[in-house]
Amino acid sequence: MLYAVKMDVNLPVGMDPEEKSDALAREKAYSQEVQRGGEWVRIWRCAGQYSNLSIFDVSGHDRLHEILWNLPLFPYMDIEITPLTAHPSDIALES
Amino acid sequence: MLYAVKMDVNLPVGMDPEEKSDALAREKAYSQEVQRGGEWVRIWRCAGQYSNLSIFDVSGHDRLHEILWNLPLFPYMDIEITPLTAHPSDIALES
Amino acid sequence: MLYAVKMDVNLPVGMDPEEKSDALAREKAYSQEVQRGGEWVRIWRCAGQYSNLSIFDVSGHDRLHEILWNLPLFPYMDIEITPLTAHPSDIALES
Amino acid sequence: MLYAVKMDVNLPVGMDPEEKSDALAREKAYSQEVQRGGEWVRIWRCAGQYSNLSIFDVSGHDRLHEILWNLPLFPYMDIEITPLTAHPSDIALES
Amino acid sequence: MLYAVKMDVNLPVGMDPEEKSDALAREKAYSQEVQRGGEWVRIWRCAGQYSNLSIFDVSGHDRLHEILWNLPLFPYMDIEITPLTAHPSDIALES
Amino acid sequence: MLYAVKMDVNLPVGMDPEEKSDALAREKAYSQEVQRGGEWVRIWRCAGQYSNLSIFDVSGHDRLHEILWNLPLFPYMDIEITPLTAHPSDIALES
Amino acid sequence: MLYAVKMDVNLPVGMDPEEKSDALAREKAYSQEVQRGGEWVRIWRCAGQYSNLSIFDVSGHDRLHEILWNLPLFPYMDIEITPLTAHPSDIALES
Amino acid sequence: MLYAVKMDVNLPVGMDPEEKSDALAREKAYSQEVQRGGEWVRIWRCAGQYSNLSIFDVSGHDRLHEILWNLPLFPYMDIEITPLTAHPSDIALES
Amino acid sequence: MLYAVKMDVNLPVGMDPEEKSDALAREKAYSQEVQRGGEWVRIWRCAGQYSNLSIFDVSGHDRLHEILWNLPLFPYMDIEITPLTAHPSDIALES
Amino acid sequence: MLYAVKMDVNLPVGMDPEEKSDALAREKAYSQEVQRGGEWVRIWRCAGQYSNLSIFDVSGHDRLHEILWNLPLFPYMDIEITPLTAHPSDIALES
Repeated sequence: MLYAVKMDVNLPVGMDPEEKSDALAREKAYSQEVQRGGEWVRIWRCAGQYSNLSIFDVSGHDRLHEILWNLPLFPYMDIEITPLTAHPSDIALES
Repeated sequence: MLYAVKMDVNLPVGMDPEEKSDALAREKAYSQEVQRGGEWVRIWRCAGQYSNLSIFDVSGHDRLHEILWNLPLFPYMDIEITPLTAHPSDIALES
Repeated sequence: MLYAVKMDVNLPVGMDPEEKSDALAREKAYSQEVQRGGEWVRIWRCAGQYSNLSIFDVSGHDRLHEILWNLPLFPYMDIEITPLTAHPSDIALES
Repeated sequence: MLYAVKMDVNLPVGMDPEEKSDALAREKAYSQEVQRGGEWVRIWRCAGQYSNLSIFDVSGHDRLHEILWNLPLFPYMDIEITPLTAHPSDIALES
Repeated sequence: MLYAVKMDVNLPVGMDPEEKSDALAREKAYSQEVQRGGEWVRIWRCAGQYSNLSIFDVSGHDRLHEILWNLPLFPYMDIEITPLTAHPSDIALES
Repeated sequence: MLYAVKMDVNLPVGMDPEEKSDALAREKAYSQEVQRGGEWVRIWRCAGQYSNLSIFDVSGHDRLHEILWNLPLFPYMDIEITPLTAHPSDIALES
Repeated sequence: MLYAVKMDVNLPVGMDPEEKSDALAREKAYSQEVQRGGEWVRIWRCAGQYSNLSIFDVSGHDRLHEILWNLPLFPYMDIEITPLTAHPSDIALES
Repeated sequence: MLYAVKMDVNLPVGMDPEEKSDALAREKAYSQEVQRGGEWVRIWRCAGQYSNLSIFDVSGHDRLHEILWNLPLFPYMDIEITPLTAHPSDIALES
Repeated sequence: MLYAVKMDVNLPVGMDPEEKSDALAREKAYSQEVQRGGEWVRIWRCAGQYSNLSIFDVSGHDRLHEILWNLPLFPYMDIEITPLTAHPSDIALES
Repeated sequence: MLYAVKMDVNLPVGMDPEEKSDALAREKAYSQEVQRGGEWVRIWRCAGQYSNLSIFDVSGHDRLHEILWNLPLFPYMDIEITPLTAHPSDIALES
């Protein structure tokens, strides 16, 4: 099942530098692990923003929630979720 | 250059049925032509909405504008554009 | 898979009375058919609003989209979708 | 009387870990007590959000307010309330 | 049970004058009948707006919905509902 | 002159408990004094919210401002003011 | 009693030219009559907008409502009202 | 050149009392100096709000910016600016 | 005096084609005349939108209002105005 | 490729004065370096706001992101980006 997920990151202003670089490193490792598992199929940076737009392909809502809830930066994120389906004009459906 | 584009369609309530089916047919043909050309790289339907989320890969703003401006349904659309760049956690960058 | 769906209905001001009562009758019949099929598990009226809050339990986004897209009143609706998962405090999980 | 209640939780960034786990434990115990009493009839997690959607069936506004006001996490919540009534298309009304 | 209800009226621009004056007369008669029945306990005009703020005291959501749904101007209204309870500082509670 | 006033209270998260209970006690005493003086004619709690809806009947804007500005919780409040007038459908005007 | 009033005008797109010029003439005459009476003390055009910002000095809410409700363009206006009081830094209070 | 300026003040919750009273005294002195110079032509308190509505008559944007930027409370303000012009219905233009 | 002006165009859905092409031609001619006069110093199309972002350099609010008010498409536009001043980091100020 | 970029600066209330003046100096130096390189083609202060409106002319999204992400004040900014293209009415296109 496909989901578009927009994540806006708001790190606290006075965050401890070590805590911050640790959180960022864990975030990257976690994201890449889920990417390698094939569930986090695309991730783009939104230009000029501390935000990403991602596409997830997972078994369903439960798994999506589990992945997002365990993001090391989850407590600092605003997350917007859009369930996606096939579009009737998609040429991939024609073949 | 990559752009995420969200298109919300609001057809006029009393639209002539023939005019409508004609516009929809032209929209689909146009979209598929641009998809086949490799510039409209993905299109998904947002579940439960008369909306799509698309990814465009074009030479720049001018070409993106040209494509969108010529959509047969452009006069009935609200369009939101997000310029995308590579994300440092993207595993595609690791290889 | 569970979804909360809020539907706000905005019938056009000058809608033909016959067309309107026909659309409402088809909407009710359609809704009840999907309810009887077990996919539209709950429907409530939001008090004082031309709106409903519904719970759907369907196989996934594709089926949810199919159901909503075919609502006779779909062209007159604003629809908001929230994917639902189990809540860790739900006592139903304890048994 | 039925109410849909959406609760968004915003825990303070630097919350003391012990205070936090204590508050979460008390929140869960309190929620389950009200669920067992039959007034908090459904609770779902909104996927990818620190939010829940709940259905309450209580004697009226006073009791609803009393339940919500005493939530251990109430000071950290944004709460949205929708009074619900029977929907004329509900098949449960047909029997 | 008490509810604050804000009603904003948006009559269609080209509304037939006779239809309009008829609807307004029926709206007034209906409102006054419910006021006399003791359920529509207060109604104020919001200064400079085609809006009113009202207080309803009814048996519950079902009755509130029934009253509002049958307002002759209901199709032209935006309605906002706030369930009210006693306030602990209210001196009426002290006596 | 009548005003509807909605007050939303946002106490700071780490507020000193003693300072808080002192502020709440002073708020209640102050509110009740103005109620007894006949200027704060109604106060309701909005169910499930740290908010109240109040009706003031004062000599004019200056006095309303003076009352609100001196609320002990004023620095923690978002306040929305609606000037009220008689409604032509009010049955109280008929007698 | 002083009020700041912001009026945004939205004339219907297909308004009959004669009806329009008549309404505009009546609006101007009405406005100037109330200005000459000393109640509509200032009126400015918001640059680049079909809007005005006005200051009214009237006996109270009832009179303000009466003036605004009878504006020939009232059915086409969005109106925002701010009750004003003396500001403690105003040098006019020093003399 | 005329500008309407709305200033909303949000003092930090835990502001040092001495620092606060000093800032308020400097704000008042500064405001009155600009008023006496004839550039800050009106200032009103918005009733029930920590806000003012002001009218400035200055040589242009540069001077307006200079005045506002140097307000002692500028770091705590949300400011909204509306450039004003003469209104064709203003009776002051008739003489 | 500099102003940034964002213009969003919303042509009516059923606009007569001749009337439309005439209005567009007049809009272009008018815009270019003001550009040639040196007051409309820049105009860009916002990519994928029926909108432009423009920079005006005019004698003041009155002239800006006159230019915008007389745009042939003014009745169909939403306009947002930002007065601009020199920025202290602008290297043009260094020379 | 052209982008309009609006930057709103929100410095933390209790920011250390030395840290602040250092950040501002680095921001200015960085901005001027990018201006001298020809990529940050215009910067204006929005009158009465801690905001700027800028025009960037860069090779594409990647470079725009790189420039903005490295702004010393980036962590304190809200940034809004509008991709710009040529406007068909621009007289610069006529020559």
